[in-house]
Amino acid sequence: MRIGLLTGGGDCPGLNAAIRGVVKHALGEYGHSVIGFRNGWKGVAQGDVQPLGRSDIRNVLPVGGTLLGTARFHPHSEDGGMDAVLATLEAERIDALVCIGGDGTVHAASKVAEAGVAMIAIPKTIDNDVEGTDLSIGFHTAVNIATDAIDRLHTTAESHNRVMVVEVMGRHAGWIAVNAGIAGGAEVVLAPERPFDIDKVVRFLRHRHRAHASFSIVVVAEGAVPAEGSAMDFTQRLGRFGEIVAGSVGEAVAAEIAQRTGFDTRLTVLGHVQRGGTPTPTDRILGSRFGVAAVDAAASRRTNVMTALRGDEVRLVPFDEVAGKVKHVPDELLRVADALA
Amino acid sequence: MRIGLLTGGGDCPGLNAAIRGVVKHALGEYGHSVIGFRNGWKGVAQGDVQPLGRSDIRNVLPVGGTLLGTARFHPHSEDGGMDAVLATLEAERIDALVCIGGDGTVHAASKVAEAGVAMIAIPKTIDNDVEGTDLSIGFHTAVNIATDAIDRLHTTAESHNRVMVVEVMGRHAGWIAVNAGIAGGAEVVLAPERPFDIDKVVRFLRHRHRAHASFSIVVVAEGAVPAEGSAMDFTQRLGRFGEIVAGSVGEAVAAEIAQRTGFDTRLTVLGHVQRGGTPTPTDRILGSRFGVAAVDAAASRRTNVMTALRGDEVRLVPFDEVAGKVKHVPDELLRVADALA
Amino acid sequence: MRIGLLTGGGDCPGLNAAIRGVVKHALGEYGHSVIGFRNGWKGVAQGDVQPLGRSDIRNVLPVGGTLLGTARFHPHSEDGGMDAVLATLEAERIDALVCIGGDGTVHAASKVAEAGVAMIAIPKTIDNDVEGTDLSIGFHTAVNIATDAIDRLHTTAESHNRVMVVEVMGRHAGWIAVNAGIAGGAEVVLAPERPFDIDKVVRFLRHRHRAHASFSIVVVAEGAVPAEGSAMDFTQRLGRFGEIVAGSVGEAVAAEIAQRTGFDTRLTVLGHVQRGGTPTPTDRILGSRFGVAAVDAAASRRTNVMTALRGDEVRLVPFDEVAGKVKHVPDELLRVADALA
Amino acid sequence: MRIGLLTGGGDCPGLNAAIRGVVKHALGEYGHSVIGFRNGWKGVAQGDVQPLGRSDIRNVLPVGGTLLGTARFHPHSEDGGMDAVLATLEAERIDALVCIGGDGTVHAASKVAEAGVAMIAIPKTIDNDVEGTDLSIGFHTAVNIATDAIDRLHTTAESHNRVMVVEVMGRHAGWIAVNAGIAGGAEVVLAPERPFDIDKVVRFLRHRHRAHASFSIVVVAEGAVPAEGSAMDFTQRLGRFGEIVAGSVGEAVAAEIAQRTGFDTRLTVLGHVQRGGTPTPTDRILGSRFGVAAVDAAASRRTNVMTALRGDEVRLVPFDEVAGKVKHVPDELLRVADALA
Repeated sequence: MRIGLLTGGGDCPGLNAAIRGVVKHALGEYGHSVIGFRNGWKGVAQGDVQPLGRSDIRNVLPVGGTLLGTARFHPHSEDGGMDAVLATLEAERIDALVCIGGDGTVHAASKVAEAGVAMIAIPKTIDNDVEGTDLSIGFHTAVNIATDAIDRLHTTAESHNRVMVVEVMGRHAGWIAVNAGIAGGAEVVLAPERPFDIDKVVRFLRHRHRAHASFSIVVVAEGAVPAEGSAMDFTQRLGRFGEIVAGSVGEAVAAEIAQRTGFDTRLTVLGHVQRGGTPTPTDRILGSRFGVAAVDAAASRRTNVMTALRGDEVRLVPFDEVAGKVKHVPDELLRVADALA
Repeated sequence: MRIGLLTGGGDCPGLNAAIRGVVKHALGEYGHSVIGFRNGWKGVAQGDVQPLGRSDIRNVLPVGGTLLGTARFHPHSEDGGMDAVLATLEAERIDALVCIGGDGTVHAASKVAEAGVAMIAIPKTIDNDVEGTDLSIGFHTAVNIATDAIDRLHTTAESHNRVMVVEVMGRHAGWIAVNAGIAGGAEVVLAPERPFDIDKVVRFLRHRHRAHASFSIVVVAEGAVPAEGSAMDFTQRLGRFGEIVAGSVGEAVAAEIAQRTGFDTRLTVLGHVQRGGTPTPTDRILGSRFGVAAVDAAASRRTNVMTALRGDEVRLVPFDEVAGKVKHVPDELLRVADALA
Repeated sequence: MRIGLLTGGGDCPGLNAAIRGVVKHALGEYGHSVIGFRNGWKGVAQGDVQPLGRSDIRNVLPVGGTLLGTARFHPHSEDGGMDAVLATLEAERIDALVCIGGDGTVHAASKVAEAGVAMIAIPKTIDNDVEGTDLSIGFHTAVNIATDAIDRLHTTAESHNRVMVVEVMGRHAGWIAVNAGIAGGAEVVLAPERPFDIDKVVRFLRHRHRAHASFSIVVVAEGAVPAEGSAMDFTQRLGRFGEIVAGSVGEAVAAEIAQRTGFDTRLTVLGHVQRGGTPTPTDRILGSRFGVAAVDAAASRRTNVMTALRGDEVRLVPFDEVAGKVKHVPDELLRVADALA
Repeated sequence: MRIGLLTGGGDCPGLNAAIRGVVKHALGEYGHSVIGFRNGWKGVAQGDVQPLGRSDIRNVLPVGGTLLGTARFHPHSEDGGMDAVLATLEAERIDALVCIGGDGTVHAASKVAEAGVAMIAIPKTIDNDVEGTDLSIGFHTAVNIATDAIDRLHTTAESHNRVMVVEVMGRHAGWIAVNAGIAGGAEVVLAPERPFDIDKVVRFLRHRHRAHASFSIVVVAEGAVPAEGSAMDFTQRLGRFGEIVAGSVGEAVAAEIAQRTGFDTRLTVLGHVQRGGTPTPTDRILGSRFGVAAVDAAASRRTNVMTALRGDEVRLVPFDEVAGKVKHVPDELLRVADALA
């Protein structure tokens, strides 16, 4: 059997663990071959092939990123993209194609599956918003990095009596913000799940600083949005900043707090550090389990499925149960963030 | 309402997060009081009381250990223990008692509950073998520490062409060994779930070193046991060492490998470092969620339950579903460890 | 003897180690008292006093920031500042005043010394530009944080074929940029010591990406400046951005590279995370040694000096040898950064 | 010019940084070739050659161990060893040989130099006892690992009211013990520089636990020795344990404390984890600087020297100034460890 393999979308820690899992298990257990494609779907379309053997995956477990490279490219939205993909898969005699990616990659996988290709998806996204699985590869490491940054900002906030605003990733869901906020002991967490009222945030900080504290940590997901109706100035400010620095809500929140409270307020935008570097053990284990499960699925012809973690177990879920859905932070977790503020 | 709080059994990272969660939520949401007991059940028996307010839990989130202290003491197995416990709880007018602990503590909790006390348990154990919850507090940090050690041993094993044997904690279940083994890319993982055949281990290592490698990592849970019948010498050796260094199976395995293969073999016993230091974000979040859930349970009179993580959710499970049971590593995870060896 | 103690200027990891060193050694070896002042020189001027005993310094060694708080306040530049300081010192019967701070604090210390106060300074600055000492407290931790960020950006740069620009602290000297650049394997390091030619940077990156690589890391100290004459567009751009985001040279460099090369280029501004969190062992040891040395100096009446590390030794250097001078990165280190690009 | 390169003795983090520094600088600045030898002097004797180009050193900066492998082999003490070494060097037309190693390797280098070979040594040893340089490669990472372990043991010691004995490396000098002891806030540090009196240690711990504390950390260098005359029982115990577990002084100290004080006492032997894993930025920078300096030395025919760090500078020191000498921990540092106990 010849198994194709690609990594698509944004990179993150743990991808190499999944690649290693696919290669080791396919070769060791089944004697199958693994054909990698470079730079995601683009490499499939262009026939950019890299056969993968044991030596290719030596020592990659603790290394972030993806040894196959990645690109944001969707075959079904490119002219002739789908045909090129199918032609390559046929030329390379691929029996099943394992794609490691987020929303977009899984969506592309379901499209390619409709064209008759045996597909298996492995979910990865630091945003953790893929439906159907407790965890996606990369999220856990991102939470660790964000928490580490909050820990560091904590001591300097306290020494200088400052409000520290930290913008973390999370466009459609606030998983990183809420988890890192709880882990780092943040006073305010703004997530896309709950449009926020800047007036309320400001009132809370004023109250806190009057009552007993002289510093605060405010964690803002990049996809957090102000509630409708409230805070006209704020949305205007967001608009104004939006033109300049690509719509950073963190910058707008920090400016608003500084202006209204007079507190010494500083902004940190974590950015790309959240998606790089050595994966945590959890992401290495998750990638390894998903890689092994994907190969088992291919070998037993259970295709058009995504590997998923549910509690202690790894399962396979059909594409149509997960594609196009966003997994949001549950209320219980949001309430814990509030309760411990 | 007056909520009692204790930490029992061995300490681990994340206990302070749970204590903080209980105190912040009890005071902030309900206006309840929290009465801590020092050094576990012993402190309850002796009336060693420490009322807990906001100032007691400042900055404890990233700190390992337990600010309440802990001890191994079971009221039901001590003369007059149970009476002393009940007397203190009455004197302190405790409405519900939250105990954070492992197997032993939960067992004690169920005994105290039988005497009519409203009990809520929060599971902690670096061994992760408490039934009914995906995770117990402390386990995740222990896996990180063990993986970090394996990563470090990896580079020195490779540079010196050595076999490195690492003994990790896990008396009844191999959760740390299996997870850290997968995360660290170990070649052999010995867990209590599967009695091992030392002959097979030796054959595997010889084969590997002949074929393509010049070093190996062997992870051994402290509770791993040799399979019956096989390996007489080995069990004898285990016996001999057992008298001297408290039954270290790692030491016996290392000695056996060294003697039979002639490979340069070294042993590392991780020991107490596995249960100390800054908790990972996962353990801080778990402790925080369990602490909040325990207070909610007390407030709503849902008692004689243990907080539990199931997938994305925190639930309450009755004592009788979990007490006296050991949660073992599932087969799927053991197979991943083997597949990626 | 009554020893006064303050921390001034920006906070950084390792200050608490120095405070602990002063308190433990003063109390334990000499039986002296230590009187802390809150929030730097401001606290001295305002008589904001906090006597320091053993219990105040428990468990502070691994904690970042300063338990005394800090502020940017220079007694000699405030109306009546110097008089207020002298009045407090007399009222509190301070025999010697230990101040932990950077350039500004040391300068203030020399002014206060001129007024007859027995002063001892301990150098701290993450920029490491205090003359006369190999290391100042906080620098080492900052290099670790910046290197960690570069390591993380490295894997994502490689996976996505990107140029990653990282702006680190260093207003007058490039110690963090050069050290983290070497440690992280950066391709370009821009430091205040060498005005840079943006044309040359662009040519270098184009050449590198044509020849053999598809990604690059560019580390920019916040105080890096373009060379005169070269790069008109660039300085204009710097001007334009300067009005908006407080003169971030990193932003200008990233924009310029993106525009001229067409490479996918991203900016990360590390900001305040560089000055927070758990100090490295090196900063804890440095703080401890300086704290002990400062007390010994006070006890032996060797005042108007700064503690300094020279090779393996801690020495005392007179204020006039160090005040008002900036320590720059030596040529050898700059050449290593270039050689390994 | 053809530069030979080997790594000898025990491995440690930072060796790959030095190898990378040699290769990048030799190729990039001078167009020289670099010929690696596998497994230290043994590889030279056996002609086990590995030419090193740019692709061999990609991504090795953060990787521990040595890509060249290492072995403990001294050409001058093996039959025909020296002749074999000289024959290989001639056959490979090596103009200068760079060897990265500790005491033994530098000694071998001086012997080979006497035979007319142009030698340059780069010092590495986690023990940091090479004379003539402030730092040797590997030491800094070892201190970080040991401090991290002490931090972890600290919280568990405190929670359980225990004495934790930690044995760290350091056969002839106590650099790791003293530095990690100060950084970790240890109560007792036993180093080879000062033969210790176990009676005094026991008295100190008893006094401390009576006065104000309920736990202690005792750091023991593996080369620490009891003072003559004192503590007969102890040396007897050391003898008895010595036969069994290779003379662990830590084990003897722990047993003695436990027996005499009755305190709950536990031992952790850190072992090989101290010499593995990702090097700290300091070790990466040190390796890089030494690698560059060694190539410059070869190019300018300044041979039979060792690269050395002195304060902020890298220098070259002649073999005869350093060979056969042990660099001990200075008194000032030992006094700081005592002062802060």
